[in-house]
Amino acid sequence: MDRYLLISADCHAGPRAEVARGYVDPRHRGAFDAWLADEKGMARRRAEHTGEAIYGDEALADFAAEDGVAHGGMDGAWDSKRRLEELEADGIAAEVIFPGGSIQTVSPFGSGLMTYQYPQDAALWAEGCRAYNRWLADFCAEAPGRRAGVGLVAVEDVGSAVAEVRWLREHGVFGGIALPNDTNGQPFYNHPRYEPLWATCAELAMPVHTHSGWTPNYGNHPGSLGIFLQEVSWWAHRALWFLIWSGVFERHAALRLVMTEQGSNWIVAAMAEMDRNYAMPMFRQLRRKLPRKPSEYYRQSCFLGASFLDENAAAARHEIGVEKLLWGSDYPHIEGTWPHTKQRLQEVFAGVPREEVARMLGGNAAAVYGFDAAALAGVAARVGPPRDSIGA
Amino acid sequence: MDRYLLISADCHAGPRAEVARGYVDPRHRGAFDAWLADEKGMARRRAEHTGEAIYGDEALADFAAEDGVAHGGMDGAWDSKRRLEELEADGIAAEVIFPGGSIQTVSPFGSGLMTYQYPQDAALWAEGCRAYNRWLADFCAEAPGRRAGVGLVAVEDVGSAVAEVRWLREHGVFGGIALPNDTNGQPFYNHPRYEPLWATCAELAMPVHTHSGWTPNYGNHPGSLGIFLQEVSWWAHRALWFLIWSGVFERHAALRLVMTEQGSNWIVAAMAEMDRNYAMPMFRQLRRKLPRKPSEYYRQSCFLGASFLDENAAAARHEIGVEKLLWGSDYPHIEGTWPHTKQRLQEVFAGVPREEVARMLGGNAAAVYGFDAAALAGVAARVGPPRDSIGA
Repeated sequence: MDRYLLISADCHAGPRAEVARGYVDPRHRGAFDAWLADEKGMARRRAEHTGEAIYGDEALADFAAEDGVAHGGMDGAWDSKRRLEELEADGIAAEVIFPGGSIQTVSPFGSGLMTYQYPQDAALWAEGCRAYNRWLADFCAEAPGRRAGVGLVAVEDVGSAVAEVRWLREHGVFGGIALPNDTNGQPFYNHPRYEPLWATCAELAMPVHTHSGWTPNYGNHPGSLGIFLQEVSWWAHRALWFLIWSGVFERHAALRLVMTEQGSNWIVAAMAEMDRNYAMPMFRQLRRKLPRKPSEYYRQSCFLGASFLDENAAAARHEIGVEKLLWGSDYPHIEGTWPHTKQRLQEVFAGVPREEVARMLGGNAAAVYGFDAAALAGVAARVGPPRDSIGA
Repeated sequence: MDRYLLISADCHAGPRAEVARGYVDPRHRGAFDAWLADEKGMARRRAEHTGEAIYGDEALADFAAEDGVAHGGMDGAWDSKRRLEELEADGIAAEVIFPGGSIQTVSPFGSGLMTYQYPQDAALWAEGCRAYNRWLADFCAEAPGRRAGVGLVAVEDVGSAVAEVRWLREHGVFGGIALPNDTNGQPFYNHPRYEPLWATCAELAMPVHTHSGWTPNYGNHPGSLGIFLQEVSWWAHRALWFLIWSGVFERHAALRLVMTEQGSNWIVAAMAEMDRNYAMPMFRQLRRKLPRKPSEYYRQSCFLGASFLDENAAAARHEIGVEKLLWGSDYPHIEGTWPHTKQRLQEVFAGVPREEVARMLGGNAAAVYGFDAAALAGVAARVGPPRDSIGA
């Protein structure tokens, strides 16, 4: 094979509001209309949350100017045909899809990555997840074998979340579920209430994901956007140590956690710190219940959906684990590598052995998400970056 | 001078309950008695918070066994004479005192480092701070020139906090105030409501401190103690970026922040990340209000109260800033270096030039807290570690 199989482990899509409405249960469409009317004040609420909008006019103008190309905005967030064309032009054969497509799309009732979310009615949150998941099932089915959706679950009612995971698995186009980074008033993930969810995800080989997005509300005060950027990845990291320390990976060895768009290098120091703490005398009792070091559960069970995989992460790949890094383009977000992925990959992987590059760019993702690499070989041969253009 | 001037920038003290009661305003003594009766369930509440107590029987037994000496528990947390003897035997001439002395001492109404704190009545929280501060003023006065207290403030009423800072300054034995790591329902530190507090602390040269302690309640569920250890420093770090990004150090150049017992090396990556974010196009507007890079405000205004200053921090001292590191022994806590400080310092500073060691062990703290180094020279000449025993 003289081209790389490129699988982006971090892309985003969602329905436009009028399309989303059709996926909402008719009983809840009145509530949806009311939510949407309020949602149109989103720019205002974003400003209240971080002081200024990340996707404000200025940021978008900067992006267009810096880009020097008319790539036509972010309609690929919902337009299947355009999306395929743009991904192929960027060298990508297959992708993993999270919500939060663009400011033109919605996740009903704030059920997406929870950025700027305010507390939700539990029933509507669950309905928002179901509606988004049903839209995503159809969207993935438009490009068979090339799209793995990440489904949404609400965690107020764990039994319903388990049922939703079974629905997702049966539909065959999902690559797992996203764990909310805030549990909407419920206990966080060391609580035994989540055991049926972990057991089901392990049984059905449905990885659980954390993706950066949610933070506390910093208010429309000075510096909120800088503070948001400083903290947003940490709030996504948290589930890792809640799952490790509470023994979830010991009890459910088949469970997989993918931590997406929240940096990569931090994991080296975090695991070293957890191992140091684990060795402390005070954990003598705990070590009977948790017989292996935290880093061993990481090695067994965890992966990094490495959007913004940069030169630093490439340099630290052996400490992080070459097999742990799943590259992502963050399409169609303006902070990702699209539409300059191929050029960016040349820079990032300069000097890295091609065998390792191939794993980080697609091989690892194919294994974690069960993509049929053989079936994708034809696409890769057509659109993938030439193997001699990236790595050494 | 053939001995080091050792100043511990992180020690702990507090009154026993019956002594604390005398410092509580008579109007609030009934409430104090009720709080104390509930407080006797502290071990239970600690278990509810982190699943097991950090200072549980097992940990204390391990400490005694490992130590191999009968150092008589932690009575130095409140016994002034014993404290002086133990500190001197450990080589220490002067100290900075935080609350949280030992499990035999109290900070009325949970006003201390807020570990395991539950939500407080605002008036009682403020009264607890006042009572602790008045006890600490007397305690510091028992060893003139050798104890700098860190006062407590409640932040519900910023005007009262400002008045308390003025009281502390007038009493001449305080080295600043501790910022609560949780604001008890009030906005966090990028809110303009705190401006009078920053202005007053800058005007009076009273450094503000964050000290690890507070975390969310993890519940009595598996892994809570490991999760607590993983997160407790981060909750203490937060004020740093709230103050930097909101421009507090730009508007109040004389304000000093000391971050105590929360690690040291993390600051290198944190400042690099903030500088990278600051350079992003989206911050063009912000850069007009915040003309210097985040790391420049760190260099201007911030210090690390480096309890557990270890070999890694010693190796990274030039990246962190030799002038930023204020060593601390954490006396009388069992996780600190007491009673083996001299031996530990030999290990940590092996190969480090003595001129730099002298700054980190005492020179920096003398400058930040205004200790009279000349007046302390006599004590240091008597109790300090020989200069040729530590460093190179």
